[in-house]
Amino acid sequence: MTLHALTPAEEINLRIARLQNAIRTCGMDAVLISDNANIYYTSGRVFSGYVYIPATGTATYFIRRPEGITDDKVQYIRKPEQIAGLLSEAGVGLPAVMGYELSSLDVISYRRLVNAFPGVTPVDASPIIKSVRSVKTDFELEQLRQSGIRHQHVYDLIPRLYREGMTDIELQIEIERASRLEGCLGIFRIAGDSMEFFMSNILAGDNADSPTPYDFAMGGAGLDPSLPVGADGTVITPGMSVMVDSNGNFTGYMTDMTRVFSCGKLDDKAMEAHQCSIEICRALEKAGKPGTPAAELYELAVSIVERHGLERYFMGHKQKAGFIGHGVGIEINELPVIAPRSRDILAEHNVIALEPKFVIPHVGAVGVENTYIVTSGGLERITDAPEQIIDLI
Amino acid sequence: MTLHALTPAEEINLRIARLQNAIRTCGMDAVLISDNANIYYTSGRVFSGYVYIPATGTATYFIRRPEGITDDKVQYIRKPEQIAGLLSEAGVGLPAVMGYELSSLDVISYRRLVNAFPGVTPVDASPIIKSVRSVKTDFELEQLRQSGIRHQHVYDLIPRLYREGMTDIELQIEIERASRLEGCLGIFRIAGDSMEFFMSNILAGDNADSPTPYDFAMGGAGLDPSLPVGADGTVITPGMSVMVDSNGNFTGYMTDMTRVFSCGKLDDKAMEAHQCSIEICRALEKAGKPGTPAAELYELAVSIVERHGLERYFMGHKQKAGFIGHGVGIEINELPVIAPRSRDILAEHNVIALEPKFVIPHVGAVGVENTYIVTSGGLERITDAPEQIIDLI
Repeated sequence: MTLHALTPAEEINLRIARLQNAIRTCGMDAVLISDNANIYYTSGRVFSGYVYIPATGTATYFIRRPEGITDDKVQYIRKPEQIAGLLSEAGVGLPAVMGYELSSLDVISYRRLVNAFPGVTPVDASPIIKSVRSVKTDFELEQLRQSGIRHQHVYDLIPRLYREGMTDIELQIEIERASRLEGCLGIFRIAGDSMEFFMSNILAGDNADSPTPYDFAMGGAGLDPSLPVGADGTVITPGMSVMVDSNGNFTGYMTDMTRVFSCGKLDDKAMEAHQCSIEICRALEKAGKPGTPAAELYELAVSIVERHGLERYFMGHKQKAGFIGHGVGIEINELPVIAPRSRDILAEHNVIALEPKFVIPHVGAVGVENTYIVTSGGLERITDAPEQIIDLI
Repeated sequence: MTLHALTPAEEINLRIARLQNAIRTCGMDAVLISDNANIYYTSGRVFSGYVYIPATGTATYFIRRPEGITDDKVQYIRKPEQIAGLLSEAGVGLPAVMGYELSSLDVISYRRLVNAFPGVTPVDASPIIKSVRSVKTDFELEQLRQSGIRHQHVYDLIPRLYREGMTDIELQIEIERASRLEGCLGIFRIAGDSMEFFMSNILAGDNADSPTPYDFAMGGAGLDPSLPVGADGTVITPGMSVMVDSNGNFTGYMTDMTRVFSCGKLDDKAMEAHQCSIEICRALEKAGKPGTPAAELYELAVSIVERHGLERYFMGHKQKAGFIGHGVGIEINELPVIAPRSRDILAEHNVIALEPKFVIPHVGAVGVENTYIVTSGGLERITDAPEQIIDLI
């Protein structure tokens, strides 16, 4: 097996060079990566082990499993305590200051690593790694565009998957199957341990108003208190909206897209709110450029909502989400965060999902979500399924 | 919404009492829980927040989200820094020694909690929580038995899902759908960040010999280097085994079961290895009693493998797994661990999965996996699908 799998070596070199630039800027001498998402980013594959990236020079991949990866930059290890010795043998001095992924590394693993590098000062590298990853390379943008195309194919099939009398979860299961047949990898990577999810979120009717513990834009009671989010077995009946927010991970890089279907005609308030969501997307597509503060996009969205008098339904009704968008890529909750107190500033080739959504009592959730590339001309949409509500009956 | 959802209050009280006993034994004055699996264990639902369990007295549930849970033991908070003040207001003194989940808590969150409790000595509570959770209550055993019954229903359907010319992933998608329609929650909770998985693992032919980074019993190249495990698109052809290890989470508590199907007749070596796996299960079912060292079960399995001369195929061929079984419950990798150097001793009402498996070159993976309750009379099997290889054609 080759180290970089489907990702060209030049692409990996580019990512490492960007990380090294950030490492130097922050006064670190090296970072040690062990989080699966960051291992994938810096190698092109997931393995069990560590990526050692010095501020200058070549990265070394210390791999525990799988066996059989052949590359000059790979060293096989059984345990992290071997790394310092192997670096010394290679004539590489230990760093004075080493960055670790403190936002994802558990305390026990962290202490073990710190003990394995005596005399080395540990600092937090999570923020700079997140920052570097938030600006996508051309190769990553292409992975995201490919996911967007296949993601759209799945949404095109949804009207044909509906049968009268279905529950939300029955429809969800058919969407999951169609998505997997289209090549969806299923896994939905989320940074941090607190958010959990299975594949997709289908909300029919008032279940959209059930609050969830998780920090997603929309809620849903879920099927079981062990996973209280999403579909809850609601039978889809006339007058209900059916919001579909389905997994877009077809390449290791995921797009995020939401569309709304209806069971017959929806009431006027719901239709107006849906149009308002589309209007917000159009406005933000123009306003979102490199240099735009993320908080400004949020405020612009709120101003449009206020003009329509729809505040009480915006981003939830009984319980509200505190953001309207977020970065996406290898993980679903990357930078920047589009929220009122966000200090993030849009940069060229950020990739963001915008999801101005509403919950209308007795109807359900409406609004669209799209994934965008930030370009100098505004936001480039890469999730192109039709945005109008499609009637299932 | 009520706090304990589907779990009776007495059941929660029993779990808290067991935890408190362990907390006192270890010299802690309290533990603060924030991991979703442990929140579910101690409350009966997942929420965003913390469970404060003093060594004696009543637990308090500090909840951020969802809104609307009404219970005397619930206090709503916005941030963990409020907890110490709220405890003081309630007349509860701060603990001198507080346990945290250091195996799952990230370093940043941990530091924030430690700062929120000035003067309190932090210690690791992960081992005692894992230990308490490894001994299931009667209520938990019933949840697991229910998952086992529904899990078996899914396996009964598998021969009807196969069509000639299918790939492993196409068959997997149909099994996923059948499983979801049976009520499978999909999510597969794994303690720790390093293992990832989507729903089920179907291995056809030599793909079973592809090494994976993850610490699962079997491998598989997977569909993409971002998730290198399981089905890889192999077309199922005559002479191949098809091993199905599918998600058994129907209740928040999951059973683990593997069965093997074949495309026509398999060679004699594969058939012998499969029988050897069943023989190991029968032997371990008798030997596994409260007080039996887990390592002894492992050694017994190896001795049977050696009698058959099948060592080189046992628990993988190119790359081998270092265990034959593991505890299951809310998470798939609970205690005890059935491995050569395990110090775990079986206790009554541990629930363990045993998976003595083989990889036979040019055929694929064979062997069964069952989930068992440890009882004074031996291991009680709760995954009852037929164990013989079923021919798909």
